[in-house]
Amino acid sequence: MRNIKMIIQYDGTRYKGWQKQTEDINTVQGKLESILGNMTGEEIQLVGCGRTDTGVHAINYTANFHTNSTMNTDDMHKYLNDKLPDDIAVKSIKNASERFHARYNILSKTYMYRINNSGIKNVFDRKYIHSIDEKLNIEKMRECAAVLVGTHDFQSFTTLKSKTKSTVRTINFINIEDNDGIIEIDVNGNGFLWNMVRIILGTLIEAGKEKLNPEDVKNILEAKKRAEAGPMVPAKALFLKDVEY
Amino acid sequence: MRNIKMIIQYDGTRYKGWQKQTEDINTVQGKLESILGNMTGEEIQLVGCGRTDTGVHAINYTANFHTNSTMNTDDMHKYLNDKLPDDIAVKSIKNASERFHARYNILSKTYMYRINNSGIKNVFDRKYIHSIDEKLNIEKMRECAAVLVGTHDFQSFTTLKSKTKSTVRTINFINIEDNDGIIEIDVNGNGFLWNMVRIILGTLIEAGKEKLNPEDVKNILEAKKRAEAGPMVPAKALFLKDVEY
Repeated sequence: MRNIKMIIQYDGTRYKGWQKQTEDINTVQGKLESILGNMTGEEIQLVGCGRTDTGVHAINYTANFHTNSTMNTDDMHKYLNDKLPDDIAVKSIKNASERFHARYNILSKTYMYRINNSGIKNVFDRKYIHSIDEKLNIEKMRECAAVLVGTHDFQSFTTLKSKTKSTVRTINFINIEDNDGIIEIDVNGNGFLWNMVRIILGTLIEAGKEKLNPEDVKNILEAKKRAEAGPMVPAKALFLKDVEY
Repeated sequence: MRNIKMIIQYDGTRYKGWQKQTEDINTVQGKLESILGNMTGEEIQLVGCGRTDTGVHAINYTANFHTNSTMNTDDMHKYLNDKLPDDIAVKSIKNASERFHARYNILSKTYMYRINNSGIKNVFDRKYIHSIDEKLNIEKMRECAAVLVGTHDFQSFTTLKSKTKSTVRTINFINIEDNDGIIEIDVNGNGFLWNMVRIILGTLIEAGKEKLNPEDVKNILEAKKRAEAGPMVPAKALFLKDVEY
């Protein structure tokens, strides 16, 4: 059986996230599997690189699937982009080695968050950026981000209820770039708990507003209580940017 | 009475163009005048730099209005951006000289059109770009654009029915830039007839598809018949970019 690897881009605005739920709910996986099913005449099960929340976007989402179809990947590429709605695109599609698995083989993932802190309203970018009027102190944000880098128990940074699974994760880096008030924050880690990126971002914004210092962030980690961390930022400005294998 | 000049940005997707029609139609002018009315307690009449069609956007639309309000322009700026919907923004608002008139004082206007000719679907840009799969010949487009530059009777390039007004206009320049298949075309002129930019663009795209050469474009101008020119391009990729005074 062939193993096919795809890189997918999607605007998450209209979707209840990546992960297929029941048949009648609009998800990116559900949409793709239905079109892949028509294309191959088989019931296709996509393996995705992870869940994304309702409204979260993806620039380079990776998925794979197995098929007996003999269609070449160029034809698949054309077929899919033709049939998919405007807000989902296949960026590349290739034959992969038999062993490739879009979830198990992940080394790390990078999420990007976009903040408009320029004080200038931009109507064309409004659906993909979080506007904050109060001027953020970028240095304070970087100091607090540094506390989160490394291997920690991120229990304070998830809305996950289960106590049975480990909440220890490793953040490899958090990069914060400010271009004339358009702030882009990249968070790279080996894995993320439910809502973890959005709670980390909410906490860093509190730091930018000078309500938290690095010592406070240490205490939040140690408290292992969701209530200690900052609020969750809106999904519309969050992008799954890259998946490293 | 004070004369106030504003630079406005809007996403035209939701609007029936700039120009106010009856009270119940959703136009950019109508939306702005209603909020300016609440702000000043007066009935405000905005003078705009021209009409824009349904679905056309503006990056730097210029308008002015007269008022007896004593509110300072910084407070007006905040009030307006706070009350306006997400898809209309005031970029600047200043006291202008008594004589400034947003329409009569225009020297030229620049429209920008955006074409995705890269063959790569981009979900985040889809509402503001016109996708063309067939590879366009940019040199042919430039050669045909050169024929249109200058002062000509543009009767073939308008859907305007009236025969009583002059259809002579001057195009100062048409710049065509291609960045990896993302084509941006700037058209600058002293004035534009109804749908003129969109018909010029449709004609240039025919040239890019090698269906027209410069001689054909000359003949289209001379024919003075709408049917001779190319089709009208979609509004969603057209921006009023600048107004020069």
